[in-house]
Amino acid sequence: VHISSGPAMAKSKFEYVRQFETDDPCLPNCWVVVRIDGKAFHKFTDVHHYMKPNDERGLSLMTRAAQTVMSEFNEIVLAYGQSDEYSFVFHKNCKLYNRRASKIMTNVVSLFASSFTLYWPRFFNSQELQYPPSFDGRVVLYPSDENLKDYLSWRQADCHINNLYNTCFWKLVQEKGLSPNRAAERLKGTLSSDKNELLFAEFNINYNNLPELYRKGAVIIRPKGTIDDASPSLDKSINNHTRGHDARASKKPMSVVLHTDIIGKQFWEDNPHILNPKI
Amino acid sequence: VHISSGPAMAKSKFEYVRQFETDDPCLPNCWVVVRIDGKAFHKFTDVHHYMKPNDERGLSLMTRAAQTVMSEFNEIVLAYGQSDEYSFVFHKNCKLYNRRASKIMTNVVSLFASSFTLYWPRFFNSQELQYPPSFDGRVVLYPSDENLKDYLSWRQADCHINNLYNTCFWKLVQEKGLSPNRAAERLKGTLSSDKNELLFAEFNINYNNLPELYRKGAVIIRPKGTIDDASPSLDKSINNHTRGHDARASKKPMSVVLHTDIIGKQFWEDNPHILNPKI
Amino acid sequence: VHISSGPAMAKSKFEYVRQFETDDPCLPNCWVVVRIDGKAFHKFTDVHHYMKPNDERGLSLMTRAAQTVMSEFNEIVLAYGQSDEYSFVFHKNCKLYNRRASKIMTNVVSLFASSFTLYWPRFFNSQELQYPPSFDGRVVLYPSDENLKDYLSWRQADCHINNLYNTCFWKLVQEKGLSPNRAAERLKGTLSSDKNELLFAEFNINYNNLPELYRKGAVIIRPKGTIDDASPSLDKSINNHTRGHDARASKKPMSVVLHTDIIGKQFWEDNPHILNPKI
Amino acid sequence: VHISSGPAMAKSKFEYVRQFETDDPCLPNCWVVVRIDGKAFHKFTDVHHYMKPNDERGLSLMTRAAQTVMSEFNEIVLAYGQSDEYSFVFHKNCKLYNRRASKIMTNVVSLFASSFTLYWPRFFNSQELQYPPSFDGRVVLYPSDENLKDYLSWRQADCHINNLYNTCFWKLVQEKGLSPNRAAERLKGTLSSDKNELLFAEFNINYNNLPELYRKGAVIIRPKGTIDDASPSLDKSINNHTRGHDARASKKPMSVVLHTDIIGKQFWEDNPHILNPKI
Repeated sequence: VHISSGPAMAKSKFEYVRQFETDDPCLPNCWVVVRIDGKAFHKFTDVHHYMKPNDERGLSLMTRAAQTVMSEFNEIVLAYGQSDEYSFVFHKNCKLYNRRASKIMTNVVSLFASSFTLYWPRFFNSQELQYPPSFDGRVVLYPSDENLKDYLSWRQADCHINNLYNTCFWKLVQEKGLSPNRAAERLKGTLSSDKNELLFAEFNINYNNLPELYRKGAVIIRPKGTIDDASPSLDKSINNHTRGHDARASKKPMSVVLHTDIIGKQFWEDNPHILNPKI
Repeated sequence: VHISSGPAMAKSKFEYVRQFETDDPCLPNCWVVVRIDGKAFHKFTDVHHYMKPNDERGLSLMTRAAQTVMSEFNEIVLAYGQSDEYSFVFHKNCKLYNRRASKIMTNVVSLFASSFTLYWPRFFNSQELQYPPSFDGRVVLYPSDENLKDYLSWRQADCHINNLYNTCFWKLVQEKGLSPNRAAERLKGTLSSDKNELLFAEFNINYNNLPELYRKGAVIIRPKGTIDDASPSLDKSINNHTRGHDARASKKPMSVVLHTDIIGKQFWEDNPHILNPKI
Repeated sequence: VHISSGPAMAKSKFEYVRQFETDDPCLPNCWVVVRIDGKAFHKFTDVHHYMKPNDERGLSLMTRAAQTVMSEFNEIVLAYGQSDEYSFVFHKNCKLYNRRASKIMTNVVSLFASSFTLYWPRFFNSQELQYPPSFDGRVVLYPSDENLKDYLSWRQADCHINNLYNTCFWKLVQEKGLSPNRAAERLKGTLSSDKNELLFAEFNINYNNLPELYRKGAVIIRPKGTIDDASPSLDKSINNHTRGHDARASKKPMSVVLHTDIIGKQFWEDNPHILNPKI
Repeated sequence: VHISSGPAMAKSKFEYVRQFETDDPCLPNCWVVVRIDGKAFHKFTDVHHYMKPNDERGLSLMTRAAQTVMSEFNEIVLAYGQSDEYSFVFHKNCKLYNRRASKIMTNVVSLFASSFTLYWPRFFNSQELQYPPSFDGRVVLYPSDENLKDYLSWRQADCHINNLYNTCFWKLVQEKGLSPNRAAERLKGTLSSDKNELLFAEFNINYNNLPELYRKGAVIIRPKGTIDDASPSLDKSINNHTRGHDARASKKPMSVVLHTDIIGKQFWEDNPHILNPKI
């Protein structure tokens, strides 16, 4: 037998190409944030007849997908979502996949996308998903707790600003019959206070009374005592993915969804275990 | 009005956190390969009762998802898949997302995962998807055509080696009643020639007559003349995703699936347009 | 005149090659450490007849070169040196060269190497430098003060361990006449306490009475009040490089060399301005 | 003895900080170019009374330092220098330091800087070096021969453009007595042909007759047959550094300095061994 002509030998001849692969480890002792964003969701929401400015089905589906991600990766201490984006915060000491950025972000974004797709019918019922959605993702590192909290504040402030604008915009379009262009013109250069006033004066809406889901986005955390830093779940049993929503599978719920302010100190004082899971 | 207390001001205070984001551009003039792998697919295939060693439904679904990715990204000149992995080759001059590796790999892997999930019922009919699958992904750069072809040869040689082994293994288990451990023991240290002989002597199987899908994997290419390098499709219309399988939408089919050898010279001589899309 | 044949046009035709250059910014809010190491200094010290185990001229020259680097880059808050290595700590908020790692490390290492060469005669007098020395360099990021202090402790502990070993080794060789191999054998597997005992019993040496320069290495800091974070010195006047040792040029000395413990808390409590230059 | 209080134990406690170090390997099969640039050489040349527009002593010293680098690193196939910069081309298959970019660039730049300093008196005689010079460095990768040649052409075209401009500028200042501002004004917007005409009409100079050193820069190559790819010189004997200029040490000269065009095809056709050292 001419061993060198065997497939194993052929393969070994090509195996040098593995040397072109690179590692991309995240710097240790930094918070690892994976932020995902829907690709071309302006079109996606049009095609799927999302309610404007906020579609509760769509937002709930996003959060459902995020919970699936959280129940798969115990190393995530908090997730924050708004509009078509979600940020996942991995503990700064997490060792998941040796902290390889590519591996972490692709696992997160693909699980999010498949969950979004799989759970679609639970939220949109008979309205079919017209085509597979995609999301982009990135990893960002934050060295200090302060940096991390500022990152989350940045996203929540963004949620607020966009929602205030969108609420005004769609009221003008839907109730006053303005064209999109006219509505945008009307809002150009206005301050937040102007927009609050517009909502109150013209639509009798007190912005602060609108649902917190819309104004604050969604914060997913784990109840105190449920973060098990010591046993990271690199290989989960197939039942694990349901822990997030299945109280029977586990005495402790795996995640809790809040619509609350995370910019101020109160939230962090009330939940010290988030940034210090061992507490 | 105290402008500094407005949300826009609050947001701008936090915006410095964007400086922690990094770019990760791929070196120009290199082939960009995105390879995705199913996460924990050993368990996934068990749970979903895949036929062993090869499940045609599963393989076809993988290829269906890969075609969706290819119809979304015109910059992909070839995709190669086997088992639970797929490699997508982006043209070395492609400018997609300014060649940012994170953006490219997350878009590919999330679209693949959502397509796999969305098209599941078309291939598995009444057998339901039990939980959302995930895939990891990575980007690898190859500077020369030679390196790229060796990469693809490496993956196809891997397909062959694994399939030959798995074919023997499952025959021993399914038809001879060996336990998995005993079957593995029996095959330990055997050469390819030994395995070919085993199949022929004990099961009257000529390995080379088995379906090429199993022995060669799947190669997806675009027919000559359909690669439009000049108009990259960063934002595709929602119909585009169906071009791959809908001959009516376009006179030219967008992709063709082959089960053929890509290790030898013949394939590349027959299809010079793959590496030189302008030809 | 055929303008397209001019050299400017020729140049612009080639300028695309700049796209292959990459940025390598250091993550913000992390301490930036540049550590340099002498290349092949075992041979270098032999050729130049360094005293063993410590050559005060050589160590002083290293520190002189380090002070030149510190006077050139105000962003350095501390340098630590031992043997043929030096570590430079850039403030975690420093903006030098937009925090580009390559630019920072190459400037540091080349200035160190040219200073070492230029100031050689001041320390080695008539003994000529036989060939140009080289150093390698690297950038390491530390997110927290704790990490940074542990890094410096690691280097100082390394200094201590090596010096204790080398002191014993060279005593055995120089005073007992052991061959290098026999001396190494004699020390193999010994604990620190054994080595202390050996020095005392056989050579009547109390290790703790040896010069701190040898046991602790060199710490270079700036006196309190001299760190001017607000005016980084990217382009220094030609006189600046002498500020470190020329008290006449500036009322405040630019740097102070200490041979002291930096592993314990005392040093950091006594010098809080090092990690908080604004204090 | 309380072993845990020993220095080795103390050191091991801190050793986790090594995990913060990163590797930065260059992609295989790409040409590795290290380009170094003098820092603040406008000031440096003023302080050291360089002749303008070209100082032969200064240019020769740069080339002398570059030759030292080339004799230290056999993996360099060509170096190109002009003004205060030098580019070193490492063979695309070189394995030096496992292709770690930081290690390669810091060794090159520090050896260059120390050589420049050490050999200064040989070129500037009694005129003393006033302060240690520094250089920055960077690594750039080029996947194809074409890209590499275009890179070198870019640098040589830059040399030509700058030299033509500087020749005019200094003639106007030195011989016509124009102020620097007036000279710059006079040249603003002129084409190459205008500058050639100006030199000829006003100074009776035929630019093409000026020394090629000024117009083309310096190309350092190894004579055919002297590149020994198989025995990389990671640790050179102390005599090696002199091989470049010491014909007695070696029958084959290690490097040859040319002032010739490398933009056209001729140079590459005449010297095929540069890009294919094994030929």
